[in-house]
This record gives sequence, structure tokens and C-alpha cells, in this order.
Amino acid sequence: MTETPALDFGDDGLVPAVAQDADSGEVLMLAYASREAVERTRETGLAHYYSRSRDELWQKGGSSGHTQAVSEIRVDCDGDALLYLVEQTGGACHTGYRSCFYRTIDGEAVGEQVFDPDDVYE
Amino acid sequence: MTETPALDFGDDGLVPAVAQDADSGEVLMLAYASREAVERTRETGLAHYYSRSRDELWQKGGSSGHTQAVSEIRVDCDGDALLYLVEQTGGACHTGYRSCFYRTIDGEAVGEQVFDPDDVYE
Repeated sequence: MTETPALDFGDDGLVPAVAQDADSGEVLMLAYASREAVERTRETGLAHYYSRSRDELWQKGGSSGHTQAVSEIRVDCDGDALLYLVEQTGGACHTGYRSCFYRTIDGEAVGEQVFDPDDVYE
Repeated sequence: MTETPALDFGDDGLVPAVAQDADSGEVLMLAYASREAVERTRETGLAHYYSRSRDELWQKGGSSGHTQAVSEIRVDCDGDALLYLVEQTGGACHTGYRSCFYRTIDGEAVGEQVFDPDDVYE
């Protein structure tokens, strides 16, 4: 099959996008992508998202340097979710953990902290 | 850290929940969970979600038999996304693929088809 899947950006113009480490398989983060964010990601090879809180297009690592080089974008069956396969520089999470999913629902920290956020964010 | 993370179910009472194969690391699907869906998942050990289209609580595999045994639930840094680590029976996708993310954004099928949907769904 080579038909380009239709993307369903929904009422708010966004789809959830999951970033997964292309090598280790670790799920790094979940954010949202607009059509423009997807286009910029494809054009540049660097993960772009749309920030719902700041209401703006956003390049991951644009300020921290913790960019994501995207090797492949996958689309789910309904076309309303994306999977970015990435090579993560540094850590994905602003807390310094490699993955934003560093805690269990009971609050146990199970992720790996890879940087000190005080050194990266002012 | 053992403090239970606060969950932010947002305006619609839902958080996106990503299901990942606990062994292979394959990202299987993205759906949405209500507070009740999370509670039922924890009580039963089987993945529950909330269907936005059918507007109801839903046990994955309830009709198909393709259940997800959940070994761990992780929460992201902001408490507004979940990661279910699961043992997937059969395939996660109604199309017969093991993962709903079986296509690239260019439409190339890269996933593994593990069942014939005509045999499972009437």
C-alpha cells in the first residue's frame, strides 16, 4: 500500500504525537502537532509540535538544545494520532529525565535522569 | 519519590493513553482514558479506555478477545498523558495489524499483520 494516509486534525486542528526513541524503543513524550508542525518536521527532519498552552508552533529543543532528529513518522489506523521515531539529544523531559514518562501512577520514579534542569533552563 | 502524581483530565475529562508492548517496546495504539477507565484498569489489570465516538467506557478486547494485560501505568511530567505497559493478546488494531501505527506518513505499510479482521469482527 502506498496511498498517503489522510490525517484527521479534529476540531482543534491538532493530533497527539508520541515521540519514541528509534533505537531503544523508549516512549519519550506525548505532545500535539498541527498540520504546520508536521510539515515543518518533514521539511527540517527535526521534531516540531504545537504548544496548546503557549498557542504556538514549537521546535523541540529550540531553547534547550535537546532536539529530536526524526527518522520516520507513522500514522495510526484512524489518522488521528502520530508516532515520531526519533534520535533524542539529551533528555526529552524538562525535569531532566530522558522520558517524560519517568514515574509510575503510584509515584515511583523509574526513569533515568540525564541532565540537571538548572543547567539547561534559566 | 513516592508521592502519587496528580492526573489532569482536562476539560473533557480525558487523557490520552499510549499502549506499549511491555516486552518488545512496540507502540501499539493511542486512545483516551477517563478517571473511571484508569480505575477499572487498575482494578482488573486489563486496559480500559473511554471511547469518544461511542461516549462510553470500553474494555480493550471486550468483543474481539484481543485484551491488554497491563503490567504498569506510567504518568508523564505534567500528569496529562498515560503510558500503559501491556501484554497484548492478538493484535491491537482492528485492521488486523499488531500495532495501529502500521503505516508511515507516506502510506507504506511497515507493521506486522497478525490476524484477519474478517475472522474477528462480524
